[in-house]
Amino acid sequence: MVTERIRYAPLRSCIITPEQAAERIRDGMVVGLSGFTRSGDAKIVPMALVEKVKREQQKLKIDVYTGASLGEVDGLMAEAGIIRKRLPFQADRTMRDKINCGKMLFIDQHLSSVGDLLRSGAMPDVDVAIVEAVAITEEGYIVPSTSVGNNPIFTARAKEVIVELNTAQPLELEGIHDIFILDEQIARGPVPLVDPRQRIGIPAIPVDPDKITGIVVSDIVDTPSSVEEPDEDTRLMAEQLIHFLRGEVRSGRLPEQLMPIQAGVGSTANAVLYGFLDSEFTDLVMYSEVLQDAVFDLIDAGKVRFASASSVTLSKKYMDKLHRNIEAYKKKIILRPQEISNHPELIRRLGLIAINAAVEVDIYGNVNSTHVLGTHMINGIGGSADFARNARLTVFVTKSVAKGGRISTVVPFVTHVDHSEHAVDVIVTEQGIADVRGLAPVERAQLIIDHCSHPDYREELRAYFEEALKRGGHTPHVLEKAFSFHERYASNGTMKP
Amino acid sequence: MVTERIRYAPLRSCIITPEQAAERIRDGMVVGLSGFTRSGDAKIVPMALVEKVKREQQKLKIDVYTGASLGEVDGLMAEAGIIRKRLPFQADRTMRDKINCGKMLFIDQHLSSVGDLLRSGAMPDVDVAIVEAVAITEEGYIVPSTSVGNNPIFTARAKEVIVELNTAQPLELEGIHDIFILDEQIARGPVPLVDPRQRIGIPAIPVDPDKITGIVVSDIVDTPSSVEEPDEDTRLMAEQLIHFLRGEVRSGRLPEQLMPIQAGVGSTANAVLYGFLDSEFTDLVMYSEVLQDAVFDLIDAGKVRFASASSVTLSKKYMDKLHRNIEAYKKKIILRPQEISNHPELIRRLGLIAINAAVEVDIYGNVNSTHVLGTHMINGIGGSADFARNARLTVFVTKSVAKGGRISTVVPFVTHVDHSEHAVDVIVTEQGIADVRGLAPVERAQLIIDHCSHPDYREELRAYFEEALKRGGHTPHVLEKAFSFHERYASNGTMKP
Ligand SMILES: CC(C)(COP(=O)(O)OP(=O)(O)OC[C@H]1O[C@@H](n2cnc3c(N)ncnc32)[C@H](O)[C@@H]1OP(=O)(O)O)[C@@H](O)C(=O)NCCC(=O)NCCS
Ligand SMILES: CC(C)(COP(=O)(O)OP(=O)(O)OC[C@H]1O[C@@H](n2cnc3c(N)ncnc32)[C@H](O)[C@@H]1OP(=O)(O)O)[C@@H](O)C(=O)NCCC(=O)NCCS
Repeated sequence: MVTERIRYAPLRSCIITPEQAAERIRDGMVVGLSGFTRSGDAKIVPMALVEKVKREQQKLKIDVYTGASLGEVDGLMAEAGIIRKRLPFQADRTMRDKINCGKMLFIDQHLSSVGDLLRSGAMPDVDVAIVEAVAITEEGYIVPSTSVGNNPIFTARAKEVIVELNTAQPLELEGIHDIFILDEQIARGPVPLVDPRQRIGIPAIPVDPDKITGIVVSDIVDTPSSVEEPDEDTRLMAEQLIHFLRGEVRSGRLPEQLMPIQAGVGSTANAVLYGFLDSEFTDLVMYSEVLQDAVFDLIDAGKVRFASASSVTLSKKYMDKLHRNIEAYKKKIILRPQEISNHPELIRRLGLIAINAAVEVDIYGNVNSTHVLGTHMINGIGGSADFARNARLTVFVTKSVAKGGRISTVVPFVTHVDHSEHAVDVIVTEQGIADVRGLAPVERAQLIIDHCSHPDYREELRAYFEEALKRGGHTPHVLEKAFSFHERYASNGTMKP
Repeated sequence: MVTERIRYAPLRSCIITPEQAAERIRDGMVVGLSGFTRSGDAKIVPMALVEKVKREQQKLKIDVYTGASLGEVDGLMAEAGIIRKRLPFQADRTMRDKINCGKMLFIDQHLSSVGDLLRSGAMPDVDVAIVEAVAITEEGYIVPSTSVGNNPIFTARAKEVIVELNTAQPLELEGIHDIFILDEQIARGPVPLVDPRQRIGIPAIPVDPDKITGIVVSDIVDTPSSVEEPDEDTRLMAEQLIHFLRGEVRSGRLPEQLMPIQAGVGSTANAVLYGFLDSEFTDLVMYSEVLQDAVFDLIDAGKVRFASASSVTLSKKYMDKLHRNIEAYKKKIILRPQEISNHPELIRRLGLIAINAAVEVDIYGNVNSTHVLGTHMINGIGGSADFARNARLTVFVTKSVAKGGRISTVVPFVTHVDHSEHAVDVIVTEQGIADVRGLAPVERAQLIIDHCSHPDYREELRAYFEEALKRGGHTPHVLEKAFSFHERYASNGTMKP
């Protein structure tokens, strides 16, 4: 019974239809939607809104703030053209196209920063928050589902809150969350977390129940993730990384159970994580923003003994597995607000090993995580810079070529810098690994070209570096050829000479 | 009497000559020197080392780690060619030249990160630490002078410590320092600081006195700073900034006494700070890494009521003033280790307003703080990214042109990215101000070009942007023209068409 999930009795009379909820969204509003990397996203109300706009041929435009990417609802909203501005992250093909052809504004924002940007008034505040929940507690608090994301800050700041009570999400998720609320920056104390396994908050999101103007019942499941299987290249990358970590342990730079691990979104990071399955490492702890399929296999294999994140993003098979074994997984997983999972304070304190995927890296170690040819947005920076900038060991992984070999992911100069050379410690491709810690730019360039670039491009990269060296400087470049690889790709469809 | 400054009696017999101390530095060693933005630097021992190398025509090469830039000793060491590798910051002409012609390796490193890089073994550890002190306490602890910098971590990690006991530094500096030591990342708690005025540590640097292998008496004063006077342009920049902050207070986005302020090194940041002198703002608090002349005038005028930093870097006149009024200033100033003054944890918690100087900014808000034409190092990133990345409000200031108008500091694409568009909130030039918070790239570009660029370059920037827009993308660019301004400067000596 749905009403059993609404334990604060006065709210039982607040159940409304998705269409009624959609009526509350008006042109020009800022809407905060739950959802983080496809999970726990608001679904039925945005869908009803899209339907309504189509049906009534309305010209409605709203600003949409989320935790991170949503599921299929992102594509539906983008297609319907109802979003004026969106932040902080997306990963949808249709939305990407709208952004790249200038039909939608996108702010590519560090995931940890959204909360403080709202608190400090740096951007317009949230009018309506629409958040998915598995239950409402006795106090009227909201129990989130498969992600926490920005739900606490959205519900705190919104003028009104609409809850999507999702019966397709198991009620047993209750208890997996740990909600810690940051104060205003002028009166804020330390975040007391010193161990990824620690609970520092409460299990539900506190909210004034009077702000909840409607509860919509839903049974739409999370859009499953579609990560690609590990392949020979990702297997080689994982091997490089494990070998490197083994060396770090041997030389006493890392303890045997390593440090807490963060691993990024997408196929590459997920595939690389699989490398730990056959490794000697056990008793690993994760402090990440999202847990993908690989983490569940690592938990099952006894490799990972605890994982903290802001969401679980799973393929269909793994989602079923989670649902079947939820009580067991709950002992090993905590989901937190993204302000906490991605907090610079905690990342530095805990001494994380951060493993994220790069789109391209340059010979000096600058990393592009977001833009194709410097101009076209893929997904966004997400939490990668929260982690990369503050981790103890910052690793970027990428295959040395993309698009069937027509693109070298090691280039003279990245066309967009998301992570500067100052923050990057180790680069891994299927070709090899470059540990650039403690190295000056000219030392780094040699390692990165020799170890990470694809043989098809290595000679040209060397020639660029040689020519640059003749011109001198701390970071030698030949500016008029800095983007020559990209220019060639733009005109010839391949970076190959 | 010098011995009165050595209150731990057993160490009184450890006084050695600078030459004896220099003998302890051997080829291939890693030497940690005290010193932060010219202040409190080790002087007499490095000078003796330089003399010795010259005299004996030795081929000695060492790696030198510091807090930040040193005084004239940096130039002397660079000229003598005794440094193989240097980190994390420098600001000396001779050293810069050596770095840029490849005769010296330089690692341009975030100032907050050096400590954890050492703890985690990411770079070779310190063999000998040479630190300036005003006294040794009863326990044998070291009382630093005009900077704290990396002294605590260097003395903790070094195999041996040499103290430069500087009698030219007033003993009354004792009590101004607050030394808080971070644990290993695996066992580290929160840093308990919640207010810039708070003391969380002890007044001296704890060290095992047995590690102190020599005390060298010195009376060489800090190299005075040589900041340029405010001019019409910096006056206009200050005016823009004050006007902006006033608006923020009016609209409730900042409290009346603002948030704690950080201001960067160099002439520009110092000059812009002077703007507060004639403003309505009072009761300001600073949480910065270095306090330059302007801060002392602001304290005297009752505008700044407290200032926390890692060093004071003053011109001759202001140094004298500090010495004369030291007891009064001590009530209003705390000097901390740079791991604490620049800690991401504290910068985020305290909600800083960070004001740093840029070398160039691009139309999308990416900032270059370090490289001329993308290749030649000026000083280094210093603490600018520690602050910029985690502050509540991140401001960059720069004159719209450099080198007598031949260089536009607003360019289509910065030639080196130290601060990505994700971290930059406000850009100020003498032409105007661009508040890019909450704006997508194409919105930012219009503001930055219209408000910040110099009229001599504005039309060409607009033309670039228009052409880029036609090509599309989230961040439109014309890659083959991205560095056209710089290429023109390189060939014609001016960016003007
Ligand atoms: C970088 C990132 C896009 C890689 O994603 P992935 O799923 O591991 O990798 P893929 O190989 O599928 O790459 C994604 C797309 O980018 C393309 N791509 C990758 N490198 C490219 C390059 N150098 N130039 C052009 N396109 C490139 C791929 O071809 C693929 O395109 P397709 O979808 O049309 O096939 C992804 O990790 C990301 O969005 N990162 C930023 C956010 C982040 O790191 N968050 C981490 C904190 S959890
Ligand atoms: C950016 C920075 C160099 C500006 O310094 P400054 O003293 O305020 O400014 P100046 O105008 O004197 O500029 C310094 C030099 O750079 C040159 N310069 C400035 N902009 C330039 C540009 N776009 N292209 C080429 N040269 C440029 C100046 O001409 C000057 O050269 P000179 O010494 O040969 O005359 C300085 O702030 C810095 O090193 N910042 C990085 C570290 C930092 O921000 N730390 C802050 C935390 S405290």
